[in-house]
Amino acid sequence: MTVGLPVVLDAMGGDHGPAETVAGAVLAQRTHHVPVILVGDEPRLTGELRGHDAIGEVATVHAEDTVPMAERGPGAAALATSSLAVGCRLVSSGAGGAFVSAGSTGAVVSCAVRGIGRSGGVLRPALAVALPSLRGGASVLVDAGATADPSPAMVAQFALLGTAYARTVLGRADPVVGLLSIGSEPGKGNRLTRRAEELLAGSPLRFHGNIEGHDVLAGTVDVIVTDGFTGNVMLKNIEGCVRTTLTMVAEAGIASADRLTEVARRYSPETHGGAALLGLLSTVVVAHGSSRAATIARACAVAYALSGQNPVAGLEAVATEPVP
Amino acid sequence: MTVGLPVVLDAMGGDHGPAETVAGAVLAQRTHHVPVILVGDEPRLTGELRGHDAIGEVATVHAEDTVPMAERGPGAAALATSSLAVGCRLVSSGAGGAFVSAGSTGAVVSCAVRGIGRSGGVLRPALAVALPSLRGGASVLVDAGATADPSPAMVAQFALLGTAYARTVLGRADPVVGLLSIGSEPGKGNRLTRRAEELLAGSPLRFHGNIEGHDVLAGTVDVIVTDGFTGNVMLKNIEGCVRTTLTMVAEAGIASADRLTEVARRYSPETHGGAALLGLLSTVVVAHGSSRAATIARACAVAYALSGQNPVAGLEAVATEPVP
Repeated sequence: MTVGLPVVLDAMGGDHGPAETVAGAVLAQRTHHVPVILVGDEPRLTGELRGHDAIGEVATVHAEDTVPMAERGPGAAALATSSLAVGCRLVSSGAGGAFVSAGSTGAVVSCAVRGIGRSGGVLRPALAVALPSLRGGASVLVDAGATADPSPAMVAQFALLGTAYARTVLGRADPVVGLLSIGSEPGKGNRLTRRAEELLAGSPLRFHGNIEGHDVLAGTVDVIVTDGFTGNVMLKNIEGCVRTTLTMVAEAGIASADRLTEVARRYSPETHGGAALLGLLSTVVVAHGSSRAATIARACAVAYALSGQNPVAGLEAVATEPVP
Repeated sequence: MTVGLPVVLDAMGGDHGPAETVAGAVLAQRTHHVPVILVGDEPRLTGELRGHDAIGEVATVHAEDTVPMAERGPGAAALATSSLAVGCRLVSSGAGGAFVSAGSTGAVVSCAVRGIGRSGGVLRPALAVALPSLRGGASVLVDAGATADPSPAMVAQFALLGTAYARTVLGRADPVVGLLSIGSEPGKGNRLTRRAEELLAGSPLRFHGNIEGHDVLAGTVDVIVTDGFTGNVMLKNIEGCVRTTLTMVAEAGIASADRLTEVARRYSPETHGGAALLGLLSTVVVAHGSSRAATIARACAVAYALSGQNPVAGLEAVATEPVP
C-alpha cells in the first residue's frame, strides 16, 4: 500500500505554469491535507512559494527542462531532464505515490508509460474522465484517449479499470458498465465492440450491455467503456457542444452569459480534477492544460485517493491476451 | 437526369405512421411542389388522403406489410412485401426518382442497398446528416452510421460524397473537408484515419486536414468525414448533450423550458430534413422516426433536390480499391 506517500506534481505543466501549479500545491496541502512534491525550475518554485509564505512547507525537486505544451514536442519521453521525466522517476523510485501534470496529454501518457510502467497483466493504459450526469452525480468515460487502436481484450480491461475508478473516485458500491456502440441490441456495433461485448458479457463485471451516444450524459451507466479514438472524439465533442448550446442560448437573448457559466461549470474539469491514467504501477492524473490552482489541488486530491488502490486485481477474469 | 420524377415515400415508416406521412406528402406537393408517390396500406392511405381532401391528388401504391420500427425486425430486406421493399423497387424500376422513409435506419439502409444498389465505383454507402454550425449555416457529417467498419478508401469516398452533398443541399460552392481525429496535427489518429488522411491529402478535394471533436459544431469545415461508428456515436451524443445542457439551464432556473425550445429546434431534424444515404443509384433520405408532417415534407424536398445530381463523379481520383 502506498497511501500516505506524497503526490509528485509537475510544476512546469499547464498553460499557466508555476504561478498556478505552486498555488495548487499549497492549496492541496493546506486544504485537502495532501502532501505534495513540486518538480520544476527550482528558483521559480522558490519564488512562487515565497509569495504564498510557504517556503519549507512544500518539498521541491529541481528539473532542468520543460516539455512544451504543443503536443508534437521534442520526443517527450526522450527529454529525460524534463519535469515530466524527473517526476515520473520520483514516483517510480518510491519517493512519491502518484504523479500529477497539467502538461500535454500525449506527452504525459508516453512519459508515464515509459517512466512508471504498466501494472502486471495490463495490456494498455486508459484515460478515465468523469462526466456529469443528468441524474446528478457523475459517470466515468474510459478510454478518453490513451489507446487509439485497442483490441477487444484491452477494451474489456478498460471496463475493469473504470469500475475500480467508479468505486474509488465516484463512490459507487457496485458500478454498472455500458459499452458504447451504435445500437443497444446485442451484436450491434463494429468488429471491435462485437467482440468486446462478448468478453464483457462473460466477465464478472456488472455489464449493462451496449449503450448509445445519447446515453453518455444521461446517467444510464456508471462506467462508459470505449476505444481511445471514439472516447477522445466524443469528449472533445461534448466540450464543443456545451459551448455551442450555451452560446446559442445567450445569443437568443434567453439568458445572460454570466448565469450560463453556472451550467458550463458543471462540465468543467474543475469539478472532477482531470483525467486519470489507469493501468500503471502508480497513479497518474492529467489535469486540463487550462487548470488554475483549485483544479490542480483537486487533481492532487484525486491522485492521492487513487494511489492506495489496486484497480487491476481480477484482470485475468475479464480478458486474457499475451501482454505485449 | 432523373429530375422531375416523383419522390417515393414509405407511408408506413416512422413513429406516427400514415397520419403524419400522408400529411407530409400533401404538404410536399402543395407547398414544396414536389410530386410524391405514397407506398403503404391502401385503405389507410385513402382514408388519410380523404381527411386532407386530397384523393386523386397524391398517387398511392399498395404494400401488404410494414417493417416494424424496432431495429431488429424480421430481416428487413427479406420482407419483400413491405412498404420499404416495394418503395425501393419503384425507384429501381424508374417510376420514382428518390426514396424517403422515416423507418428504422438499419432497415432502410439494408433494403435500399439491396433494392436500389450502389452507384458504379462506390465501395460502401454513407449517411449524411446536416449539423448546425456556431457560425450560422450548417455542415455535413458523413458517415453518420451506414458503414461501421470502413476501409481508408471508403472514408475517402465518403468525403467525395459529402462534398457533393454540401454543394447541392447546403449551397457551398467549394466545400472544405475535415477528417475527424484525435489531434489536428498530421499523423494523429488511429490506423484508419492515418491512412485516410494520406488519401485525402493526395485527392483533388479541398482537404483542411484533421479536425477534433470540438470543431464539429464550430463550423471549422463544411464536410466532417468519419467512419460510421464514430459518426453515429457522436451524432447521438450531440442530441443527448444538447438535451442535457438545456435541461441543466432550465433546472438552474436561468430560463424557461419554453424559451429553450427555440434553441433545441436548431438541432432538430425538422431543420434539415433527415439523413441522406449517399452512394446509391438513386437518392434515399432517412427521416427521423419522430418526424411530423413538416419534416416529412422537407425530407421529400431534399430528396427531390438531390435526385438530379451525380455525386459520384470523380471517385477514381479520390480512392481506388476493388469494389466488393
